[in-house]
Amino acid sequence: MTAAADLTAYLRRVSALERVSNLLGWDMETQMPRRGAAQRAEEAAVVAEMRHALLSDPRLAELCDAAEAAGPDARGSVDIAEARRMRAQAVRVPARLAAELAAVTAEAQTVWEGARAAARFADFAPMLDRVVALKREEGACLAADGADPYDALLDRYEPGMTGARAAELFAALRPGLVALAARVADAPAVPTLAGDFPAEGQMAFAHRLGEIFGYDREAGRVDLAVHPSCTGRLADVRITTRIDPSDPLGNVYSVIHELGHALYEQGLDPEAALTPAGAAASMGVHESQSRLLENQIGRSRAFAEWLFGELRSRFGDIGVDDPEVLHRAVNAVRPGFIRTEADEVHYNLHVLMRFDLERALIGGDLDVGDLEDAWNARFKADFGATPPDAARGVLQDVHWSAGAFGYFPTYTIGNVYAAELDAALRADLPDLDDRLAAGDPSSALDWLRARIHRRGSLLPQPQTLVVALERKYGALYALG
Amino acid sequence: MTAAADLTAYLRRVSALERVSNLLGWDMETQMPRRGAAQRAEEAAVVAEMRHALLSDPRLAELCDAAEAAGPDARGSVDIAEARRMRAQAVRVPARLAAELAAVTAEAQTVWEGARAAARFADFAPMLDRVVALKREEGACLAADGADPYDALLDRYEPGMTGARAAELFAALRPGLVALAARVADAPAVPTLAGDFPAEGQMAFAHRLGEIFGYDREAGRVDLAVHPSCTGRLADVRITTRIDPSDPLGNVYSVIHELGHALYEQGLDPEAALTPAGAAASMGVHESQSRLLENQIGRSRAFAEWLFGELRSRFGDIGVDDPEVLHRAVNAVRPGFIRTEADEVHYNLHVLMRFDLERALIGGDLDVGDLEDAWNARFKADFGATPPDAARGVLQDVHWSAGAFGYFPTYTIGNVYAAELDAALRADLPDLDDRLAAGDPSSALDWLRARIHRRGSLLPQPQTLVVALERKYGALYALG
Repeated sequence: MTAAADLTAYLRRVSALERVSNLLGWDMETQMPRRGAAQRAEEAAVVAEMRHALLSDPRLAELCDAAEAAGPDARGSVDIAEARRMRAQAVRVPARLAAELAAVTAEAQTVWEGARAAARFADFAPMLDRVVALKREEGACLAADGADPYDALLDRYEPGMTGARAAELFAALRPGLVALAARVADAPAVPTLAGDFPAEGQMAFAHRLGEIFGYDREAGRVDLAVHPSCTGRLADVRITTRIDPSDPLGNVYSVIHELGHALYEQGLDPEAALTPAGAAASMGVHESQSRLLENQIGRSRAFAEWLFGELRSRFGDIGVDDPEVLHRAVNAVRPGFIRTEADEVHYNLHVLMRFDLERALIGGDLDVGDLEDAWNARFKADFGATPPDAARGVLQDVHWSAGAFGYFPTYTIGNVYAAELDAALRADLPDLDDRLAAGDPSSALDWLRARIHRRGSLLPQPQTLVVALERKYGALYALG
Repeated sequence: MTAAADLTAYLRRVSALERVSNLLGWDMETQMPRRGAAQRAEEAAVVAEMRHALLSDPRLAELCDAAEAAGPDARGSVDIAEARRMRAQAVRVPARLAAELAAVTAEAQTVWEGARAAARFADFAPMLDRVVALKREEGACLAADGADPYDALLDRYEPGMTGARAAELFAALRPGLVALAARVADAPAVPTLAGDFPAEGQMAFAHRLGEIFGYDREAGRVDLAVHPSCTGRLADVRITTRIDPSDPLGNVYSVIHELGHALYEQGLDPEAALTPAGAAASMGVHESQSRLLENQIGRSRAFAEWLFGELRSRFGDIGVDDPEVLHRAVNAVRPGFIRTEADEVHYNLHVLMRFDLERALIGGDLDVGDLEDAWNARFKADFGATPPDAARGVLQDVHWSAGAFGYFPTYTIGNVYAAELDAALRADLPDLDDRLAAGDPSSALDWLRARIHRRGSLLPQPQTLVVALERKYGALYALG
């Protein structure tokens, strides 16, 4: 084999172990019997440990050097750079810490689920305290040269991004978002859907959405879970959703969102998808794909035309009488407690809040014992209300129990990318709205496949959410 | 940590990786989208490779020596002996071969499924040829000191057993089985069930069977698959079944059979189950648990009493009018093409045939190209008929595609153990039949838990299937 092929084979083994880790997580969320959690924690730990061993093996450095010396092509260069980055991270994090993190976060998710069901933060706090301590330690290891531990965690999800740069971007967004939220709050009330939306019919519609967006069911599946998610790569990309029989829109927009992630993964270059060069560019870019489908496409006036017909034919009377009203319903702007149910205007305010809180937790400026109070105080300040319980407050997200500190900012970064992509895509596809009204988003998907999905990590980087949001909600609410 | 604790921690990591391998298999059979097979093969390969690396690591030998020197208890001694046995096997099999076997067998299962669906052996033969070549190589590596390669493969599933000893045992069984089958063939025809048995109702009854046999649903789950199976350990033990809406008995006895396996795994000593000493003693003992539940308990006259009432109340008219007739129906003896559907009399004839064929394949006395003809000729000789197609012939079992050469004999060994256990159990529990007639097998389970399940691999070893079968079928068919 050539040096390049040797490195590729090695990196494919790393990718395979990562997919195994992700499958263990998916299984835990959708299939695993309740009592299996402790065993699963051991399983997750040993797989994480094996990945760590592969990445910290000196042989990987030798393979990178040999591939570098052989004169790599563009894809090879990205593989080498990413392999070195992963290796540097692995070498800095002791195997003991990596295994402990995997075990503790696997256990923490079950504890979090129980605490969330009971709406008692105290049930989760001791576990979260352990997770935060381990993540502080991990961040400190990764930021060995005295850099900020939070930056090191964030860099995992959004290479090149720092807490300071994110804070700067968010500071620019915030005043506009707060002002817009205040203006919309004074606008007339928007309609809501009413009717009978049985779970089976909603699941059938989830599959129909998959179909029109081009999701390959032979390379994926749709299941129910506490938290909607997308897991997998290329030929095995699974999504989950949750269903509320009194409201079809939660399922509809969760599914469209996760389909955005799934189509990205299914649309990677098959020749390169199982090494870093062919994998998704960053979590922010990933989120841009889900947000673009969910908001710019799925909540457009044109798409509401198709959606209205579909919902009426599937569920009968849905409580709103025409696509125009449905369009306003799916774009309802109301301050709410739950991030995943938040409208476009409030969503980023949720994210900005989590970013500040988690940065303070990792930085040591906030203790887990004070987190619920800090959450409620900040929520009151930003949204004008106090969460009625911890389930609708500090316990609502899976991220911290999973150890995914540094992940939240990628949501807003993704929203910014999505707004920019939408502008570019609409400039290229003048008849997009006609197609969307007929339930055919395929031209948008083709555009994304060629420009984003197939390029994997060979993609260069991008910025103006507020401008786009102001344009959209200004028109919708007829603001002055 | 003490030397014993260090070894335990190491062996628990091995166990965790084995569970991950098994979960990848379960997922492939029940959840994985069709196109995911090639990626799954890479995943299975890397996990097998990691297990192999753990077992061949010199550190394991050092840990065994240290634990030995510290004066182990009975459990520790079994752990040490089993760790050394696994390590010797791992060291003899090159990592390259272990990874290739895992990858090829994962791929082979999908190819086998396709070939079986198309009933074309030619679609599977090239793949099976690769598997057999790799298994011959593996057997030769394991039997380094000039021993028989097939023996080495068999020893994996039934420690201490050899091909020659199994052949001797089977030679003793065969004439009695052949004679019994011939005598039963001349007996009057037995009744069959008829009615409407919807899939949902059958799945609900599968859960009910789990309930009466003491299966912990919080530590397990029941799914549909092509091939009924049991996967997992202790707190996460999953079974699969298949459902035929025109016949409830296939599902009933598949479920009871798999419950036998599952209850063994769930009933292991929680303190020891994740290291070799606490794990199941052998595949033969495993099979004895499933066979005992399926045949000695599930097909008893007493259990038919309860089963009749349940089937009638769930499905209405079932085509037989009383428990006595149902008892004869569930014990119908007919030569059939499918091993998993075979009655007790013919079942072992199926196994004996596979044993001879696979031993010849591994020994180099039979080529894969000649396997279908060899299968059909032997089947004609033993059962008096030729399989109508490969799906009901040489393609019916998953084992060879999975590389599980040496596994088949454990079925008959298990049947022998089950007959002996049943005699002992009934001697201890004189009121068992009264309880079974009321749908309560719990006293039998308690007996098995204490004597078999909890003892794990600390169990000593056991013979006389034909005598038990002759007694049962002699009475049932009123043979002379």
